[in-house]
Amino acid sequence: MANKQLNIGLVGYGFMGRAHSNAFLQAPRFFDLPYRPVLKAMCARNPDRAKAFAANWGYESIESDWRALVARPDIQLIDIASPNDTHAEIAVAAARAGKMVMCEKPLARNAVEAKHMVDAVEAAKVPNMVWYNYRRVPAVTMIKSMVDAGRLGRVFHYRAKFLQDWTISADLPQGGEGLWRLDVAVAGSGVTGDLLAHCIDTAMWLNGPITEVTAMTETFIKERKHNLSGRVEPVGIDDASAFLCRFANGSLATFEATRYARGHKALYTLEINGEHASAAWDLHDLHRLQFFDHRDEGQLRGWKSVHVTDGDHPYMKRWWVPGLQIGYEHTFTHQFADFLESLDSGSVAGPTFRDGLATDLVTDAVLRSAQTRRWEPVASA
Amino acid sequence: MANKQLNIGLVGYGFMGRAHSNAFLQAPRFFDLPYRPVLKAMCARNPDRAKAFAANWGYESIESDWRALVARPDIQLIDIASPNDTHAEIAVAAARAGKMVMCEKPLARNAVEAKHMVDAVEAAKVPNMVWYNYRRVPAVTMIKSMVDAGRLGRVFHYRAKFLQDWTISADLPQGGEGLWRLDVAVAGSGVTGDLLAHCIDTAMWLNGPITEVTAMTETFIKERKHNLSGRVEPVGIDDASAFLCRFANGSLATFEATRYARGHKALYTLEINGEHASAAWDLHDLHRLQFFDHRDEGQLRGWKSVHVTDGDHPYMKRWWVPGLQIGYEHTFTHQFADFLESLDSGSVAGPTFRDGLATDLVTDAVLRSAQTRRWEPVASA
Amino acid sequence: MANKQLNIGLVGYGFMGRAHSNAFLQAPRFFDLPYRPVLKAMCARNPDRAKAFAANWGYESIESDWRALVARPDIQLIDIASPNDTHAEIAVAAARAGKMVMCEKPLARNAVEAKHMVDAVEAAKVPNMVWYNYRRVPAVTMIKSMVDAGRLGRVFHYRAKFLQDWTISADLPQGGEGLWRLDVAVAGSGVTGDLLAHCIDTAMWLNGPITEVTAMTETFIKERKHNLSGRVEPVGIDDASAFLCRFANGSLATFEATRYARGHKALYTLEINGEHASAAWDLHDLHRLQFFDHRDEGQLRGWKSVHVTDGDHPYMKRWWVPGLQIGYEHTFTHQFADFLESLDSGSVAGPTFRDGLATDLVTDAVLRSAQTRRWEPVASA
Amino acid sequence: MANKQLNIGLVGYGFMGRAHSNAFLQAPRFFDLPYRPVLKAMCARNPDRAKAFAANWGYESIESDWRALVARPDIQLIDIASPNDTHAEIAVAAARAGKMVMCEKPLARNAVEAKHMVDAVEAAKVPNMVWYNYRRVPAVTMIKSMVDAGRLGRVFHYRAKFLQDWTISADLPQGGEGLWRLDVAVAGSGVTGDLLAHCIDTAMWLNGPITEVTAMTETFIKERKHNLSGRVEPVGIDDASAFLCRFANGSLATFEATRYARGHKALYTLEINGEHASAAWDLHDLHRLQFFDHRDEGQLRGWKSVHVTDGDHPYMKRWWVPGLQIGYEHTFTHQFADFLESLDSGSVAGPTFRDGLATDLVTDAVLRSAQTRRWEPVASA
Repeated sequence: MANKQLNIGLVGYGFMGRAHSNAFLQAPRFFDLPYRPVLKAMCARNPDRAKAFAANWGYESIESDWRALVARPDIQLIDIASPNDTHAEIAVAAARAGKMVMCEKPLARNAVEAKHMVDAVEAAKVPNMVWYNYRRVPAVTMIKSMVDAGRLGRVFHYRAKFLQDWTISADLPQGGEGLWRLDVAVAGSGVTGDLLAHCIDTAMWLNGPITEVTAMTETFIKERKHNLSGRVEPVGIDDASAFLCRFANGSLATFEATRYARGHKALYTLEINGEHASAAWDLHDLHRLQFFDHRDEGQLRGWKSVHVTDGDHPYMKRWWVPGLQIGYEHTFTHQFADFLESLDSGSVAGPTFRDGLATDLVTDAVLRSAQTRRWEPVASA
Repeated sequence: MANKQLNIGLVGYGFMGRAHSNAFLQAPRFFDLPYRPVLKAMCARNPDRAKAFAANWGYESIESDWRALVARPDIQLIDIASPNDTHAEIAVAAARAGKMVMCEKPLARNAVEAKHMVDAVEAAKVPNMVWYNYRRVPAVTMIKSMVDAGRLGRVFHYRAKFLQDWTISADLPQGGEGLWRLDVAVAGSGVTGDLLAHCIDTAMWLNGPITEVTAMTETFIKERKHNLSGRVEPVGIDDASAFLCRFANGSLATFEATRYARGHKALYTLEINGEHASAAWDLHDLHRLQFFDHRDEGQLRGWKSVHVTDGDHPYMKRWWVPGLQIGYEHTFTHQFADFLESLDSGSVAGPTFRDGLATDLVTDAVLRSAQTRRWEPVASA
Repeated sequence: MANKQLNIGLVGYGFMGRAHSNAFLQAPRFFDLPYRPVLKAMCARNPDRAKAFAANWGYESIESDWRALVARPDIQLIDIASPNDTHAEIAVAAARAGKMVMCEKPLARNAVEAKHMVDAVEAAKVPNMVWYNYRRVPAVTMIKSMVDAGRLGRVFHYRAKFLQDWTISADLPQGGEGLWRLDVAVAGSGVTGDLLAHCIDTAMWLNGPITEVTAMTETFIKERKHNLSGRVEPVGIDDASAFLCRFANGSLATFEATRYARGHKALYTLEINGEHASAAWDLHDLHRLQFFDHRDEGQLRGWKSVHVTDGDHPYMKRWWVPGLQIGYEHTFTHQFADFLESLDSGSVAGPTFRDGLATDLVTDAVLRSAQTRRWEPVASA
Repeated sequence: MANKQLNIGLVGYGFMGRAHSNAFLQAPRFFDLPYRPVLKAMCARNPDRAKAFAANWGYESIESDWRALVARPDIQLIDIASPNDTHAEIAVAAARAGKMVMCEKPLARNAVEAKHMVDAVEAAKVPNMVWYNYRRVPAVTMIKSMVDAGRLGRVFHYRAKFLQDWTISADLPQGGEGLWRLDVAVAGSGVTGDLLAHCIDTAMWLNGPITEVTAMTETFIKERKHNLSGRVEPVGIDDASAFLCRFANGSLATFEATRYARGHKALYTLEINGEHASAAWDLHDLHRLQFFDHRDEGQLRGWKSVHVTDGDHPYMKRWWVPGLQIGYEHTFTHQFADFLESLDSGSVAGPTFRDGLATDLVTDAVLRSAQTRRWEPVASA
C-alpha cells in the first residue's frame, strides 16, 4: 500500500457517486498504486443525504456547498458526479483552485461549456479526466491494442449503438432526482449526450476523428409531468438519435441510441471492420471479445468468442483466475488506477477533458444536423 | 399431385437459375399444390451451357434467345433469373405475350425500368412476383404475423443490415459471369440494389412505407480490371451504402449494406422494436426467431430464441419434425408454393412487381441522397 | 448427368421414406455422380399409401409385399426405411438376392439381428450402408478431418447427448403409425436405439472403439394406451438412457439421451476435447462448428464459431454461396452421393452394416448394464 | 451502517482469502446489514505474507498460528480460507472456542473429517457456513425460487459439469503454494472435491438428495514433480471424474468435472428439466439465466435468455441499474450479507456445515464407486 496519499472530494451521491466511490475503495485493494486514495469529503446539498452517503462509503467529512469543497486545502482531487448542468462551473472553479479534476461524462451539456472546462484545466495544468469508463472494459482495451498493432489493417466500417427501453411509458415523469436525464435544462440533451457520447468516445479512441455527420433525432413522448414544477411540460430531450458519419481515415459508420428499444436494458454494441480483421463487443456480455481474423486458416475461419478473464488480458491479472468474470463497476476501478499511475509516471491517462470536448463537438454536430437536415462538419477539439 | 400443369420457361442459369429450378422441383414434393409445375424450357445464350443446365435440372428443351422463349405458346410462366440489365425487356415482352412473370430481385436497375415492368404486367393482368425470398423464411413470416396481430404495438425502431466481405481484395475483377454484380452497367448499382433491396423489401412488408432517407455510399476500390474489356476500369458501383430513414408510421430506422465487413458472409440482420414487443432475426441462423415480449412476467423477461421448426410454424409442417432445420433454398420453395396457391385462390401473393417498384423507389432515393447529401423523399409506388 | 442408372426399390413411406427419397432426387441435381438414380418402385403394405407416395416422389411402380420387391430383377438397390423390426428380414433377403442394401438406423433391434445382416451382406459381397446421416453434416465431417489430421492431439474427453421432449405427456399412446418408436416390440428399445445410437455412431467414427460402459435407464411413464390393441399396456422402452464409458484410446465419455428434456426438440450435441484442440457441434444449429485451438496466440484464444457454408467446407461447394446454410435433409443427400461415388471408385463409404453392428453392440451393452448395474464390456464388431 | 460490529479472524491469504476479504469489505457498502464487519486479524504462517495481506485488505493485526487466532477473545468469527487439510482442525477448535465458523469448500477432505466439524459446530451451537458461493449467483438463486414455486413440475433430469483445462501440461508440478490442489494429501481429492463438489451442492439445493451413484475417475498424468520434495512423485488426485446418479425425487442426472477439457477455463454449467419448465445456467456468463416454459404460447416457445440485472432479480437492486452485470466475487458478498442477516433474524443461511457434509458424502461415494466399479449408495448427512 502506497505511502503517498491523495485526498479526494466528491460532488454527487447518485448512481455515479456510488460507482466512483467504489472505484476509490477497490483500486488500492487490487492494484499496486503510487498513491493511497483518501475519501476526504463528500458534498451534497442535502446534509442528511451527504451524511448517510459519507457513512456508507467512508468519507471523512461532508460539505453542502461545492464551493466550500473546492476551497478546502486538504483536498487534492475534485471528482464531479453531479448532474450535467453543474459540471462546468465546478470544474472550472476546481481547476482554478489548482485541484486535479475528474468529471463524469458527458463533459458538459454542450461544447461551449466543455471548452471553458478544457481551457481551465489546461491553464491550471492540472491532471484531468472524464469518466468514459468503457475504454477500460478489458475486451475494449484489447480492441484498442489490436488496432494499434495494425492487426485490422485499413478500416472500412465502424458501427455502434446503445439501446435502452426504460422511458417507453408515457407515465414516467421528467426531472428531479433519478430523472434529471429527461430534463433538457439539466442534461443538455437526451440520448445523444447520455448514450451516443459513450459510443463516440470509444469510436474516436479506436478509429480516430469523425469529420462529418448526418443525423436524425426524435422525441416520441412529447410531454411529461415535470417532477419539480408538478406540471405537464414539453419534453426537450431527444428520445432517440441516429447518425451516419465519416471518419478521417476514410471509414464509414452508423451510430444509434435510443431509450425506446423494447427488450434492451443497456445494450451498447460496437464493431469495427478492417481489411484483415474485425472486432466486436457488447456491454450485455462485457467480458467477451468477438474477434475475426482473416489470416486464420481458411477452413476454420470464424468469429472467436474470447472470454477475457486470463492473466494476460488487460487488467485481469489483478482480479481472479481464468474463467471468472468481472462486472460493470470494475471499469471505473481500472480507470482510477490508470489515473493514479499516470500521476506518478507523468504520462497522460485519457480520456482527458480535451477528449471529452471532442466528443461534445460530435454530439453538438449530431444535434445540429438533426435540426438543419444537412451533413454537418465536426470541429476539432 | 395436381393434374393441372403449369409450364415454365426459365431465363438464366446462374446462382438464381439453380435456386429457382430447385424450387420448381421441390415445391410439389412437399406442398399440396393446385398446379404441377413442368420445366418446359430453359434459355441461355450459350447452347452448351443451356443444354447442360437443362439436363441437370430436367428442363425438356432449350432456347438460346429469350424472345423465342417468350413466343412459345406452350409456356405459361416466364421466370427471369438473368442479370439485372435484362429484367425489364424480358418482363415487358413476357407480359405482353400474356405470360405470368416471376423476376429475380431487384426488379430492375432503377425505378424507371421497374415502372415499365409494372405497367406491362398490370396492363396484361398477368400474375407477377419478385423473388424477394426472405419474406418466406419461416421466422420472418412469423414476425409479419406478430406485427399484423398487433403484438408489437406502436413501432419505434427498425434496423437492418446486410454485411458481406467477398469483394475486399483489390485483385478481384469486375464484370462477366459471376462478377456482373460489380459492373454498374449490368447491375444498376452495387450493394444498394443487391443487398439493401432485400432489407428494404422486408422492412416495408413488416413496417409500411418509408417516407424519406438520408444516405451515404462509398466505393473503396476505385478501379478494377474488367473481365469483358480486359482493361482496368473505374468501378461504378457502391461498395457500401447506409441510410437513415423515417417510416410513415413514425418509426425511425437505420440501414446498412456492405461487401467490406470482414468476417461476415451474408449477414442479413433485422430488428423491429415496438411498444410491447421486439423481434429480431438474422440470415446466418435463419431458422431462429428472437422475440422479446414486455408483457411476460417481469422477473423472467428476456429474449426468446425460438427454433422455428415446429408444425405450427409457417411452412414447417411440410418439412421434417421439430428441431430439424431447413436451409436457404427452402425460402424459394415456399415462395413458389405460395405463388401457385395464389393462382388458384385468386389472391395475390407478394411481393408483386408493384412491391418491387416500391423498393426500387427507395434504393433510387438512397443513391440520390448519397449524391445530393440531402434528405430525399421517397415516391410511392 | 450420368448415363449409368441405378434402380432403387424403397420400403417404407414414413419420415425416413421421405428423407431418403428426397436424397435420391436431390443428389444428382447437386453432385456429379457416376450413376443416375432411378426411383423404380416403392413398397408399402397399404396400396393407397404406396400409390400416393409413389405419385408424390416419382416412383415408377409400387409393391405391397417387400418379398416381391426384393425379387424384382429390375431393382439393384433395396433401401429399408420401414420400422426397426423389419430391417433384418428384408436386408438379409435383399442381400441374398444380390441387391445392394441401404438401411435406416439403428441397423436392427439388437446386435443378434444386426449380426445376421452383416453376415448376409458380407457373404453376398453387396455394397451396404446404414443411414447414420449425421456423419455427413459438413461441420461434423470437418471434425473428423481435424481428428484425422492430428489437430486435436491426445483425446481426453468426449461427451454427447440427444435431448427431446415430445413424449412427456402421459396421454400420448404407443404403437402404430408415427408412434412405433414407443413400442418396444417394434423398436427394440427406446432412446437407446433411437437417439444414443446416433451419438455412438458419430463418437466411434471420430474417437474409435468404446471398450466398456456403465449405464442407467428409466421409463418415466410406465403405462400407455397401445394404438394397436386399444388397451393400456406397460411401456417397454427406455424413456431416458445415460452412460459413462471408456474408449480404447484412453479417453473418457458421458452420453445421455432422453425424450423428457423439456425445451429441447432434437438437441444432439457433441464435444471432443484433445490436448491441442477441442471441437463441438449441435444439431439445432447444424451449420456451425465450434472449434478451439490452444495453439492460437494466447491473448486471442477462444471458441471459434465457424459458419460452415464456404466452398472449401465439406460438401458445401455443391450448394449455394458462403453464408447460406443448408438444412437437415442435405445430410442424406450427401450420404447418398458418397454411396454412389463409392460404387464407382471401389472404395467403401461408411457407415457399413458392420459399423452399424458395432453401434448395436454398444447399445446392447448399455441396456445390459442398466439391468446388471455393472460395468459391461463392449464386444467388437 | 450498523452499530453492532462483528470481528473477523481470517486464516489463509490465497485466492479465497482475497475473495472472502473482498466480501467482508463490500457487503456493508451495498447491503443494509445488522452488523458491521471488522477485519480484526489475519493469520498466516509466513509473517511477511500476513503483514502484506493485512495491509492490503485492512486487517488490524496478524497472527502466525491459527491456535492463537482462535484463542483471541476479540474475534467472533473465524473464516477458514486455507487449504483443505487444515479445515477440520481449525473449525473444530474454533467451534469449541465458541466462534462462529465460515469455511471454504469443500468442507473437508472427506466425510469423516466433515462429520467431526459438523459435530463440533452443532455441539457448540455456533453459526456456521460453507462457502459454496454459486448458490448466490442471482441467476442460480432464481432457479431455486422457480423450483420452490413449483414452476418446473416433476423433475426428470439434472445435468452439471465443471470443465477446466489448466493442468493439461505434464510440466506443471504438484504441491506447494497455488498448486496444493494437485497434492492429494492436502486436497483430499482432485476435481471431485474441487469442482464436482460445487456441482453437487447446487444440485442438492435445487433438486434434493442424491441416493446412489456410479462413477469413473482418471488421472491422465500419472507423475509430476512435487514442489515440496523436489522429486517426481505419483499423482494421487483424480484429473477427471464423472458420475451418473439418481435423486430421491426420481430424477436422473449426469455429472462431470475435469481439468483436461481444452478450451474451458471454469465452465460450470447446470440444467434442470421439469415437466413444465427447464432452466440452465453457466458460469462463463453468470449473469444470464436460460429459461424455457412449456406453458408459453406454442408458436413462441423458446429458451429465454434473461439478463439478470434488474431490481427485482435476487440481490440486484443493491448493485447498479438494469443491463449492468456483476462479476464472480459478488457471489461471496451476497453470501456474507445473507450470513450476517441470518445472525440477526435467527434464521439459518445455508449451506451449513451439515450441507457441506452432505456434499462430502456424495463425493466420497463417487470416489468409492470409481474404485469398486459399482453403484454406491449415498449416506444421508
